[in-house]
Amino acid sequence: SPATVAVLTVSDSISAQGDDKQDKSGELAQTIATNNGFQVARKEVVSDNINEIRAHVKRWSSSADSEHVDWIITTGGTGFGVKDCTPEAISPLVEREASGLVHLMLSTSARHTPLGLLSRPVAGTIGSTLVTTLPGSPKAVSQILEGFFEQGLIHHVLDLLRGGSGKTLHSQM
Amino acid sequence: SPATVAVLTVSDSISAQGDDKQDKSGELAQTIATNNGFQVARKEVVSDNINEIRAHVKRWSSSADSEHVDWIITTGGTGFGVKDCTPEAISPLVEREASGLVHLMLSTSARHTPLGLLSRPVAGTIGSTLVTTLPGSPKAVSQILEGFFEQGLIHHVLDLLRGGSGKTLHSQM
Amino acid sequence: SPATVAVLTVSDSISAQGDDKQDKSGELAQTIATNNGFQVARKEVVSDNINEIRAHVKRWSSSADSEHVDWIITTGGTGFGVKDCTPEAISPLVEREASGLVHLMLSTSARHTPLGLLSRPVAGTIGSTLVTTLPGSPKAVSQILEGFFEQGLIHHVLDLLRGGSGKTLHSQM
Ligand code: NA
Repeated sequence: SPATVAVLTVSDSISAQGDDKQDKSGELAQTIATNNGFQVARKEVVSDNINEIRAHVKRWSSSADSEHVDWIITTGGTGFGVKDCTPEAISPLVEREASGLVHLMLSTSARHTPLGLLSRPVAGTIGSTLVTTLPGSPKAVSQILEGFFEQGLIHHVLDLLRGGSGKTLHSQM
Repeated sequence: SPATVAVLTVSDSISAQGDDKQDKSGELAQTIATNNGFQVARKEVVSDNINEIRAHVKRWSSSADSEHVDWIITTGGTGFGVKDCTPEAISPLVEREASGLVHLMLSTSARHTPLGLLSRPVAGTIGSTLVTTLPGSPKAVSQILEGFFEQGLIHHVLDLLRGGSGKTLHSQM
Repeated sequence: SPATVAVLTVSDSISAQGDDKQDKSGELAQTIATNNGFQVARKEVVSDNINEIRAHVKRWSSSADSEHVDWIITTGGTGFGVKDCTPEAISPLVEREASGLVHLMLSTSARHTPLGLLSRPVAGTIGSTLVTTLPGSPKAVSQILEGFFEQGLIHHVLDLLRGGSGKTLHSQM
């Protein structure tokens, strides 16, 4: 069965409008993930609220929950705006930090524009779920997801998190 | 009104000499910040002492304090010397870590020399104040500040911290 | 006297085999360190067990212990496998985090293959001991150690940790 993804869009304005069509970044993440063989099982929009963000990530990463997914992609709330708090909501939940994926997100963004370095991403695992926090800009979402899928990077991560041996991976390194 | 900056030089030797003219990195940071439209409101030299460093950063980042500034630049104390403790002094005060700015500082330094990777920088926000810890080398200070000002990077950060919408920023990304 | 190194290989399978000849990455790290003028004082293999890893690192970094070394190199256990826990074992012991060395490890690996970004390295100091966690792949071990020795990077770190002034270093920057 294909790996499952939850897309969480964090944005006061989109959440207030109550119109998911305004959620360009979330829609984009959903499309790209689907095109890369993932099943997008959840897609929600929340405001820039630490407790709301955390509640979703907790539920989707809990192995005991029916809404459990393999990979949580958030978009938005990673910058310096006074309300931006996505990393602060998620960091305390992360059990194993993935500095390499943070490096990938930042260096990918920076290749396109130094302004990509205004993001403060978090990446890591919670139980058997991978979580990555993407910026709110559709362009950045598409660039970073492209980076994630290069050479099957994320497929390797999810295979390992499901208990895979990583043999294919090691033979490529 | 122009954004305000405090420059804190951390160095046992400069502090002991009591001669601010020896503070080449601090003077350089002041000059470069001024040339980029900032008002350098504070400039001090302290020894490599966790409590002294922390007291300055606390005062300058407190919204209730008359010495509050928008941006604190420290120079020195970020290496592997036995007394180097600037990151350890400041890390516990940081409320929102800025991994992107750390990435920028390190990749900028590394472009000039691999020895730039001997720094252990910290960046983030405390209340509405941005804090960034630069190395003690004047060359590194100038390279990193140049990186910060590229495409108005720091101006965007400070605008957002003051409650700006980031609209100009998003249109550029 | 030459700086001393301990090499810790973290691997359930190598540990279970009880055959150190299978420890290609550890052997490689030992050879490369020796060729670069280090004295490899310790070399051990442990399973992917947080307590075992931590016990070794504690002993080798304790200034009161006869097994104290200047630099601990671990290999293995830094990925996304369900048992991988080397960073989690070591992180809580690190007193001064070395974000620059983490950046170096990741950017070095990424230059060879994006898959290098599937590592979650930790670097920093515990007392006067440097600790760095390398991936389990022999290729990655050799690439990263080469990066560490470029321009005498690690020699500078260890000289500073032993109380050196860093004068040679500063004149090069
Ligand atoms: Na980089």
